[in-house]
Amino acid sequence: MKTNPGRFFEDYRMGEVIAHAVPRTLSGGERALYHALYPARGALYSSDAFARSCGLAASPMDDLIAFHTVFGKTVPDISLNAVANLGYAEGRWLLPVWPGDTLRAESTVIGLKENSNGKTGVVWVRTRGLNQRDELVLEYVRWVMVKKNSSTPAAEAVVPKLQESVPSEALVVPEGLDFSNYDFTLAGERHRWGDYQIGEQIDHVDGVTVEEAEHMLATRLWQNTAKVHFDATNRDDGKRLIYGGHVISLARALSFNGLANAQMIVALNAGAHANPCFAGDTVKAWSEVLDRAETTAPGVGALRLRLVAVKQGAEPFALRDDVGKYQPEVLLDLDYWALVPK
Amino acid sequence: MKTNPGRFFEDYRMGEVIAHAVPRTLSGGERALYHALYPARGALYSSDAFARSCGLAASPMDDLIAFHTVFGKTVPDISLNAVANLGYAEGRWLLPVWPGDTLRAESTVIGLKENSNGKTGVVWVRTRGLNQRDELVLEYVRWVMVKKNSSTPAAEAVVPKLQESVPSEALVVPEGLDFSNYDFTLAGERHRWGDYQIGEQIDHVDGVTVEEAEHMLATRLWQNTAKVHFDATNRDDGKRLIYGGHVISLARALSFNGLANAQMIVALNAGAHANPCFAGDTVKAWSEVLDRAETTAPGVGALRLRLVAVKQGAEPFALRDDVGKYQPEVLLDLDYWALVPK
Amino acid sequence: MKTNPGRFFEDYRMGEVIAHAVPRTLSGGERALYHALYPARGALYSSDAFARSCGLAASPMDDLIAFHTVFGKTVPDISLNAVANLGYAEGRWLLPVWPGDTLRAESTVIGLKENSNGKTGVVWVRTRGLNQRDELVLEYVRWVMVKKNSSTPAAEAVVPKLQESVPSEALVVPEGLDFSNYDFTLAGERHRWGDYQIGEQIDHVDGVTVEEAEHMLATRLWQNTAKVHFDATNRDDGKRLIYGGHVISLARALSFNGLANAQMIVALNAGAHANPCFAGDTVKAWSEVLDRAETTAPGVGALRLRLVAVKQGAEPFALRDDVGKYQPEVLLDLDYWALVPK
Repeated sequence: MKTNPGRFFEDYRMGEVIAHAVPRTLSGGERALYHALYPARGALYSSDAFARSCGLAASPMDDLIAFHTVFGKTVPDISLNAVANLGYAEGRWLLPVWPGDTLRAESTVIGLKENSNGKTGVVWVRTRGLNQRDELVLEYVRWVMVKKNSSTPAAEAVVPKLQESVPSEALVVPEGLDFSNYDFTLAGERHRWGDYQIGEQIDHVDGVTVEEAEHMLATRLWQNTAKVHFDATNRDDGKRLIYGGHVISLARALSFNGLANAQMIVALNAGAHANPCFAGDTVKAWSEVLDRAETTAPGVGALRLRLVAVKQGAEPFALRDDVGKYQPEVLLDLDYWALVPK
Repeated sequence: MKTNPGRFFEDYRMGEVIAHAVPRTLSGGERALYHALYPARGALYSSDAFARSCGLAASPMDDLIAFHTVFGKTVPDISLNAVANLGYAEGRWLLPVWPGDTLRAESTVIGLKENSNGKTGVVWVRTRGLNQRDELVLEYVRWVMVKKNSSTPAAEAVVPKLQESVPSEALVVPEGLDFSNYDFTLAGERHRWGDYQIGEQIDHVDGVTVEEAEHMLATRLWQNTAKVHFDATNRDDGKRLIYGGHVISLARALSFNGLANAQMIVALNAGAHANPCFAGDTVKAWSEVLDRAETTAPGVGALRLRLVAVKQGAEPFALRDDVGKYQPEVLLDLDYWALVPK
Repeated sequence: MKTNPGRFFEDYRMGEVIAHAVPRTLSGGERALYHALYPARGALYSSDAFARSCGLAASPMDDLIAFHTVFGKTVPDISLNAVANLGYAEGRWLLPVWPGDTLRAESTVIGLKENSNGKTGVVWVRTRGLNQRDELVLEYVRWVMVKKNSSTPAAEAVVPKLQESVPSEALVVPEGLDFSNYDFTLAGERHRWGDYQIGEQIDHVDGVTVEEAEHMLATRLWQNTAKVHFDATNRDDGKRLIYGGHVISLARALSFNGLANAQMIVALNAGAHANPCFAGDTVKAWSEVLDRAETTAPGVGALRLRLVAVKQGAEPFALRDDVGKYQPEVLLDLDYWALVPK
């Protein structure tokens, strides 16, 4: 067999480190495509001049470009035979990615638990994205449900203890970041860190209808090879399941309208792809302020935000039903920390 | 309210200067996307080597990339609640935009006139695009019909006096531009400035059918956020109104076939989006030579051109009906000056 | 007539050299788009760091970017009135193309043969791609069936003698290429040159469904202007014929799964676009090892590969029927040489 059949549950070993293939150099090309694929308007990621006024050497690549690139590398080893992408935790952005940087990824297996049906199991991995200087730029824990391919019962279950959210003390502010002279006019909104209250909900108003061509372009751009995103013959209706990360980027970009100053994502606390998204769906987003924290960087505060992506037909701010199940129109429930000028 | 509701007619003041948000650094990525989105083949914008043979340091960004980028910045402040984009005038390209340049935009309100229905009004703005050195790279006047949100009658109408067209003496030729050694073979056509006669009409022959994914990618690329371009739930048929600038770029690119040597756009005299364009439409274009002028740059002449975009079903060179109304197949009627080798 | 009607059969002269228009500078933008348009994962074309570990200065542009760019330039002169693209031969990649390079193209007419119906003829051209230093980066022979536009019988037929395949001694290995320290883990597969046997067939497993927007973006990116790819009014069903080169790139990218280490294309021996491809088709690919050869570069071997693209409904490895006709599901039959680590 010359082709990659993907790994099954029994192919993972606790503590194993998997080096993922195909490192990727990112450039202004990926940045331009990001702007074409998502309605992204964060000034720090749009303008070298604005980034310099915030103490950075130039405009870094969008934090989610780094995430998607690293995530895409893991797919052939982690989620080719995945039944479901179950969750994220302990995600941190540790260094900006600049045009010209090359990213590679590796994952450590930190948990394994066979399901009671004996046909699937859950695999937890801690994934690290590294640049060409072997510096850690990004890490996160992800767990997926993977098919078993043998009838041998698995070893004893190991379920990792994960932080409920990244504590604010663990947030890493990029070196040099300084929001003391932040230009709120150029950034697009006047709301400062202090203007956001815990519990506050923001409807981001705008909606984007997704076409098959768009999500496939995006998913390929991240070298994500999961068949379900590309092959219309997999389903009777010819639709392709949209990569969950595409919805993350859409929602994050839409959240500009109300959170234009939530510039940098520095942590991913949790995330659920609540329902599948398909071409033709119109994606909207709302946010909720979950927490606030200070940082030691000048003028820089942090907000912990819930970002919810919904599709057409969603009720305002409706997340779950009476029994705690996600509403059918909810696509994404993401919990992250962002840096905001004070 | 954390989100931007857009401005209504009563929110504008005569003489007010609006600084638009989200400066944008452009690179080879935007250029590559422009070539993917439009059938653009102008040699000066395709090849560094060709641009150098014309006296420039490198190939500049397409003039319409500069226009779309600046235009996109104005949307949240000018046309979010616009009912119609009524016209353009006094547009001039003053400096080339190079990869790496950062553009920002500001607009001055130069006219205000409430409509007799009391529900809408016309706003005239003069928009300026500036680079990271605060140099003026582009300016144009645009007027839009905007909704009123209050019943208070507006102040007295001010309608600006606008030039019918930019006089040829006011055209700015980029520094160093020299068409003395222009390579007509590499440029793709042999026709010189002197070969075009006033009144001459050119059918550009080729047609391009537009898909939803394409115009949305383009419009997002320019960070244009007008909902009508992206949200299928706005209309019963699920179609999205195509950004008028998308049609401008399509028509301009199609005009290569017959006007390959109309290299640089230096002025926008007037423009009307005659009818809406939707996905599925096949866009074709024709041009008419309106005027000719000399410039002081070596080998460089100027042509004033009418560029008309039409869709399937259009009669050859048909523009208006007996009562002066645009034919239903006419999408765009644009009047511009371009620099052409003599 | 200001527009280009294209050439007809009688417009070609034996030995004539046609300089094609619109040179093109390529950058990281074209590379990013290539990754968005095709599921390309070759490590050498994805990562500067990986390319350096293979002795190159940086990651070159994908070999097929060079091919498409050169091919696109020839369309207005060679295939605007073509009825069919009949074949390729004697293709060689002679120098890598780097971001920032400018490509232009010229073609020499090397064969002319009127068909017996008197309405069409076959034109053979040898096309050369040159960079901004006038170095030859790529050459190939292509022959097309072109319409006649006059009733005058043509001169005596000249059919060029073409090599059945590029001999392995004629393969050009890029200067400095060294696979001695090739990282098979980062490249994505462990199979070496020696692991592939002549006659071996590989099913590349993955499939990609093509959308109209995608192939039009790609074909425009290469400045290929053939109307059939863009204008829905050309056919009753509104479909656009997909550029054959789009299928080449799709199939080549899909072949990563099983041929991840077939890094560089160095020769194109033959190629047939067996059946047309349309939006909605799901493209899959399989390969057959046709030959193996040594090279003088350290650690570098060569494989001659048949790359077959098929659409939904294809039988495994089915190429032709009993009478030698391509199966209706076969889209492409390509014969090329690639460099592979030993």
